[in-house]
Amino acid sequence: MTVDPTSAIQYAHANYEEALTELQELVSIPSISTNPVHKEDMLKAARWLENKLTSLGFNAKVFKTEKHPIVFAEYHFSETAPTVLVYGHYDVQPPDPLDLWETGPFSPEIRGEHLFGRGASDMKGQIIASIKAIESLLKHDKLNINVKFMIEGEEEIGSPSLKKFLIENKELLAADVALNPDTGMISADTPTITLGLRGVAHFELRIYGPDRDLHSGMFGGVVHNPAQVLCDVLSGMHNEDGSVALPSFYDRVRKLSEDEKAELSRLPMNDNTYINQTGVPKLWGEPQFNAIERIGARPTLEINGIYSGYIGEGSKTIIPSYSMGKVSLRLVPDQDPEEVRHQIIEYLESTIPDTVTWEIKGPRGAPASIVDRNLPATIALKNALETVWGVPPVYKLEGGSVPVVASMEQILGIKSVLTGFGLPGDNIHSPNEKLHLPTWKNGIDTLIHFFINMTNIETE
Amino acid sequence: MTVDPTSAIQYAHANYEEALTELQELVSIPSISTNPVHKEDMLKAARWLENKLTSLGFNAKVFKTEKHPIVFAEYHFSETAPTVLVYGHYDVQPPDPLDLWETGPFSPEIRGEHLFGRGASDMKGQIIASIKAIESLLKHDKLNINVKFMIEGEEEIGSPSLKKFLIENKELLAADVALNPDTGMISADTPTITLGLRGVAHFELRIYGPDRDLHSGMFGGVVHNPAQVLCDVLSGMHNEDGSVALPSFYDRVRKLSEDEKAELSRLPMNDNTYINQTGVPKLWGEPQFNAIERIGARPTLEINGIYSGYIGEGSKTIIPSYSMGKVSLRLVPDQDPEEVRHQIIEYLESTIPDTVTWEIKGPRGAPASIVDRNLPATIALKNALETVWGVPPVYKLEGGSVPVVASMEQILGIKSVLTGFGLPGDNIHSPNEKLHLPTWKNGIDTLIHFFINMTNIETE
Repeated sequence: MTVDPTSAIQYAHANYEEALTELQELVSIPSISTNPVHKEDMLKAARWLENKLTSLGFNAKVFKTEKHPIVFAEYHFSETAPTVLVYGHYDVQPPDPLDLWETGPFSPEIRGEHLFGRGASDMKGQIIASIKAIESLLKHDKLNINVKFMIEGEEEIGSPSLKKFLIENKELLAADVALNPDTGMISADTPTITLGLRGVAHFELRIYGPDRDLHSGMFGGVVHNPAQVLCDVLSGMHNEDGSVALPSFYDRVRKLSEDEKAELSRLPMNDNTYINQTGVPKLWGEPQFNAIERIGARPTLEINGIYSGYIGEGSKTIIPSYSMGKVSLRLVPDQDPEEVRHQIIEYLESTIPDTVTWEIKGPRGAPASIVDRNLPATIALKNALETVWGVPPVYKLEGGSVPVVASMEQILGIKSVLTGFGLPGDNIHSPNEKLHLPTWKNGIDTLIHFFINMTNIETE
Repeated sequence: MTVDPTSAIQYAHANYEEALTELQELVSIPSISTNPVHKEDMLKAARWLENKLTSLGFNAKVFKTEKHPIVFAEYHFSETAPTVLVYGHYDVQPPDPLDLWETGPFSPEIRGEHLFGRGASDMKGQIIASIKAIESLLKHDKLNINVKFMIEGEEEIGSPSLKKFLIENKELLAADVALNPDTGMISADTPTITLGLRGVAHFELRIYGPDRDLHSGMFGGVVHNPAQVLCDVLSGMHNEDGSVALPSFYDRVRKLSEDEKAELSRLPMNDNTYINQTGVPKLWGEPQFNAIERIGARPTLEINGIYSGYIGEGSKTIIPSYSMGKVSLRLVPDQDPEEVRHQIIEYLESTIPDTVTWEIKGPRGAPASIVDRNLPATIALKNALETVWGVPPVYKLEGGSVPVVASMEQILGIKSVLTGFGLPGDNIHSPNEKLHLPTWKNGIDTLIHFFINMTNIETE
């Protein structure tokens, strides 16, 4: 059975403005998962999605969790048709530093070809694109498969509630394959399928010295400065060559095959691409790997934030009473987050001197994952991208992390196909996050073709 | 000519409550020199002192400077009598972290034997003690010497305007000796004269990486993290043994003589004294020197504050766009602040990689100083302390810095005698700064005796 996409594509184009309005509605909800003051906003965003999917004829429901709710919705077409589970997350990163935003992070504004706002690209735009593709098919009775949505609210904080939800709802979530539109494109004219994702781990370290800030003259030289200890400890986590200095950290790191290196070398990116995207004077990192290999295939350790003592105007000659550091790591196949957790603790226990005391939150983490390029759904996605863009997609190893991909395979036995319509310059996790609307529009068309192509795959 | 102190001492005791009220008035003015928003408060404190000294018959005046005004006041007794220049500073350290204060830093409150408030001990309490001693003598015509007050408002920020003022007002400030009550006592029953003071230098370093905070997954491994660079740079400023790792830093450091070591060993302090005062699990520092030697005779480098990236609740997986560190150093004889400045710049230029850019405020500094224990004024002070406490004072090398001592000797040719009636547990530069009132009361008596003793010294 083949399905003609024409009418659905026409509907999508005719209703583009409406789609944009709905996206702006969703972006205007400050669903910041990491900050407890936004608990109500999280529920508001979940309800918005529940109502939208219900209006399309889905059986939608908001599931409570220990932190933020998960939206599940199901459209049943037939027992024999394949089932696609669409994954999404409605939570966003904190917008600070706020003063660097040209317009409010939650007051979405269209300027030129872009929609500006926190979450526009990561990933409320991707969720709306998926929903509008489905809507376009439904309006013309062209959705001949079963579709489920699972949209969580804790992706930006490591999905603490998701595993429990997957374990408790295996039947509800049963599907042939998962579509995950949470990764990006290399450029507006280079459709991209992500075959690899880095895992992640993060922790917060606090080092405690004197019971109060001390006069640096009266006590300097006898009290170990907690800011100094923090710098020593964090500095010691990297080697001279930029590699991570945790014990046994590279033991399980999978080596890049010549084929993989060749595939990566086809990507239209080089050092200058990254220099232009970041404005740094010069790139940095392990010299024996090029930039694309370091991002896609090498683990990294990043300091996300540090604080100690007096950081206001002028000087204050003190020994701070404590210091704090936030660190995240990106993991690659076949690193085990649990092993990495032990490597971090082992390093801290052997490094932090007994002149101070310390405590750690985490580390918590998720493993990296690899997607099969010969999966029927991967091929359906490849053909959909090629139909819309006129060129075959490139395959990339993503530096970012989507822990849910590994969890869904481990717990549900469901493989994921990964794409998305955000661009490297979208400033996700940064001020002035934006979405390139022409690309986003192509994304809606692509997903229409993808769901139609899925009609014909063989179900297991 | 000998003068009987009895009536002056009686006056001081009878007017103790009034003295305390005046001290509370002065402490309640938030004269924070480092923060521009307090410019008006600075002038208010200066005017308060001008009015008080005028009311005692001094010829008082407020001198404007580029930053904060200097109060100068003069009482002329006779051409032939010796002249004592009393130094003080009416500015205070910032009170933050505010939430750790039990009562408002600028709402002075008496609890038990202490007056709590920012500046109560450092050094508004010392200024009031000096003024009340003079007042007690004047009320009974017992002040038979010339007295000048020079009270600045920039001590806590390195006295940027003072040198210029000294150079431009040499005649006005001419004196036989200076009394500087800005150092403390070892304990409430151990009167103390300070013979050595550490110099100081401080700077603020900013390291700039990408033009915005970046997604650590998309760019981790290719962009050098400015927080990591800061940690590397600050960590590299110390050696394993706790010594400072700047080039040639110790070349001019004066070695402790056996006599000085013996003198220091007489001080009633040991490692436990400092552990009890700070609550740290264990002391730290150069192993070949004991705690008293490290504070009194060894230079140190302290991180006063660090900041980079996200320091709020939860996690944010970014590469920060910049990092900032505030550092101060304590210098000893015969280190030259200008040489130290070059050592810092040389270290930074040779250490900071070209993967980032950076800028530095400062370093600015002042040298350490040594006081002559055989100076007539030192002996007058020694006798005054012994008269009030019944035991001879101990002589110590102070870890803190009073740059004005070196400036007054270099520019005016005036030597200083150093004492003060604050205690190690006063929390100066920390939350809940307090002044021990019985000790402060003894301080007023001591200064009455000191000024009387000065009547008899030979003038140069």
